[in-house]
Amino acid sequence: MANSPIITLTTDFGYRDPLGAIMKGVILGINAEANIVDLTHGIGKYNVREAAMVLGMSYREFPQGTIHVVVADPGVGSQRRPILVATESYLFIGPDNGVFSYVYDESERVAVYHITAEHYFGRGRSTTFHGRDIFAPVAAWASKGIEVTKFGEEIKDFARLRLPVPTAPSATTFEGEVVYIDTFGNAITNIVKKDLEALAASGKEATVRIVTKGKDVKLKEYYSQAEDKELYAVINSMDHLELFVYRGSAAKDFGIRLGDSIGLVCA
Amino acid sequence: MANSPIITLTTDFGYRDPLGAIMKGVILGINAEANIVDLTHGIGKYNVREAAMVLGMSYREFPQGTIHVVVADPGVGSQRRPILVATESYLFIGPDNGVFSYVYDESERVAVYHITAEHYFGRGRSTTFHGRDIFAPVAAWASKGIEVTKFGEEIKDFARLRLPVPTAPSATTFEGEVVYIDTFGNAITNIVKKDLEALAASGKEATVRIVTKGKDVKLKEYYSQAEDKELYAVINSMDHLELFVYRGSAAKDFGIRLGDSIGLVCA
Amino acid sequence: MANSPIITLTTDFGYRDPLGAIMKGVILGINAEANIVDLTHGIGKYNVREAAMVLGMSYREFPQGTIHVVVADPGVGSQRRPILVATESYLFIGPDNGVFSYVYDESERVAVYHITAEHYFGRGRSTTFHGRDIFAPVAAWASKGIEVTKFGEEIKDFARLRLPVPTAPSATTFEGEVVYIDTFGNAITNIVKKDLEALAASGKEATVRIVTKGKDVKLKEYYSQAEDKELYAVINSMDHLELFVYRGSAAKDFGIRLGDSIGLVCA
Repeated sequence: MANSPIITLTTDFGYRDPLGAIMKGVILGINAEANIVDLTHGIGKYNVREAAMVLGMSYREFPQGTIHVVVADPGVGSQRRPILVATESYLFIGPDNGVFSYVYDESERVAVYHITAEHYFGRGRSTTFHGRDIFAPVAAWASKGIEVTKFGEEIKDFARLRLPVPTAPSATTFEGEVVYIDTFGNAITNIVKKDLEALAASGKEATVRIVTKGKDVKLKEYYSQAEDKELYAVINSMDHLELFVYRGSAAKDFGIRLGDSIGLVCA
Repeated sequence: MANSPIITLTTDFGYRDPLGAIMKGVILGINAEANIVDLTHGIGKYNVREAAMVLGMSYREFPQGTIHVVVADPGVGSQRRPILVATESYLFIGPDNGVFSYVYDESERVAVYHITAEHYFGRGRSTTFHGRDIFAPVAAWASKGIEVTKFGEEIKDFARLRLPVPTAPSATTFEGEVVYIDTFGNAITNIVKKDLEALAASGKEATVRIVTKGKDVKLKEYYSQAEDKELYAVINSMDHLELFVYRGSAAKDFGIRLGDSIGLVCA
Repeated sequence: MANSPIITLTTDFGYRDPLGAIMKGVILGINAEANIVDLTHGIGKYNVREAAMVLGMSYREFPQGTIHVVVADPGVGSQRRPILVATESYLFIGPDNGVFSYVYDESERVAVYHITAEHYFGRGRSTTFHGRDIFAPVAAWASKGIEVTKFGEEIKDFARLRLPVPTAPSATTFEGEVVYIDTFGNAITNIVKKDLEALAASGKEATVRIVTKGKDVKLKEYYSQAEDKELYAVINSMDHLELFVYRGSAAKDFGIRLGDSIGLVCA
């Protein structure tokens, strides 16, 4: 007997309006056994990049077979296509606006389908809420085992975001940027542990420096090692370099912002 | 075999205090198979009208047999009655303060019961939290199949809110108002698609005009058709006329407020 | 057949970041039958005392056997121990920072285990997110029936918070303080119903007085008895004395704060 399929929801709906709940009602009307998990409804309004990032941080923590639905969809009702993405481990359902860019980069096998099979859509045919009318019902049908090829034709020209990639201006320097600021005010960068290790392996110990602020920050092993209210760095749980203030906020206390550059310079 | 019954929760508890979770604990203590869905806990504090509106937007999206519990209940502990409402498709449980007014208007059959059967109440007998002591346990027992007539006597004098209804001052005009502003800043009115169609069927094309602001807004088919930052209208997913700004906020950018009048005038 | 085990989550993660959802993914990967309930993710950042309080308000409302996981954990990655607490009715999993202090005080039997059995940990070994790497997987394994003694050695020197306790400066007076302010602005004190009854039983009727403000507040039976916008007191659903303003906020309208003293003086 199969376990209940998991369907996660990632949206910019917030927590006051009942839009996420409406999607759950639609899903449960098709598959009463679906196990629906809110990934978050707190994505910044219309912020496709943030939705891509938050999904990217999370989707691999779910069991194989999980169906991840994302609705950050300013283009709803226009020509932008609804898509289903099948990888070796997961399904993803949402708009073709680049919100699955991290998934495309990180998966071994990616097949993207343009969802057109209207008999799997919901009762509604709105131009403003495809979460209810297309994404939720398609996720529910997929969770019942409908094959991915039944939802529409495979496409190759799906949209990708231009994701910020670190650069190596020289053999002794490495430059990235702040790509997410969490609700603790921690600033997560796109520099990862192996970038530091690679630079260290070049024979020199890496010193982390925030270039925009002209300021050196020390690397700590965990948050509470940093007992003063200074800015420090840590390798976080996703192996990314992260700026933090212990019991404080890197964003508020030091004005760290999205896109701030952060450099590794060999000492 | 019956599917797990769905119980939805709509409250003004917010997301910090554990009140909604306490209701879930009580429900699961009575019916471990209950499938509890948060409709929202983000109703404005003490705002019965907003709770009625949000419930009205959502309840029909859930499968037949769903039990909808609402706790927006400033009169808790007073003489206001706890009630159970049975319609042809759903049960509703909450205070008799008008919060089910849309349900009364939209259902074919409505039976309202004054909940008095204390053996279905919880352990607590507080005067401040009937969500925990009455509504949650009664919902849990109802989800186990206890007949609605077991919870108390039917009543006919249940409370109704005076809901804002559009008017037709003349054969060529129609007037409604803004009844909900969502977290995107979209302003949902009480004018629906068939009101526009009826006016259009009178032989003239309807032009949507916001009367309070003396300003004409154009009707779009979907949000991203409106690429500038002007105020536009759309028929939304619930077939209501809605004011919006693409990637913006009708409420913030144009000062649209609850109760603002919106008129249809034939051109 | 056993019912699905309930696992509750209480964290300071907020509702934007996907950290709580990641914990759910980890739990469901180990036990697909787990019934996960968000107690709250709205604990103030790093606020161990608030997490202890909110857990204390809620945990007894859940069925026997529920596993309560708490992550308010500024010391993550340091020498502070991960612990599992077994009482006569529940399991608790989280950091050894005093967050279970109310549980220790209120339970008949308490056994505390230092979690060290790494084969029950998750794939990750971060120093910043033990919610994902230790607490969630241990909760999932415990929900599958792994015996508590398998997770590590029992310890006796677990941490406790110094909880604010009311005092009786004289036979006719009693002093407590505000220990929690909810999102309605109600101010919950650490004085309970039986404190009032005990003082009343001393032969005199107790009058509740807020000593810091030099102001007497009247006791009401329920909120809507207080129709003006004055400050009143009520015995709340947890039998605590609570200050409130009907359809208002004791915190905002009268400047009531955490730690404000409140005295009972016999009239």
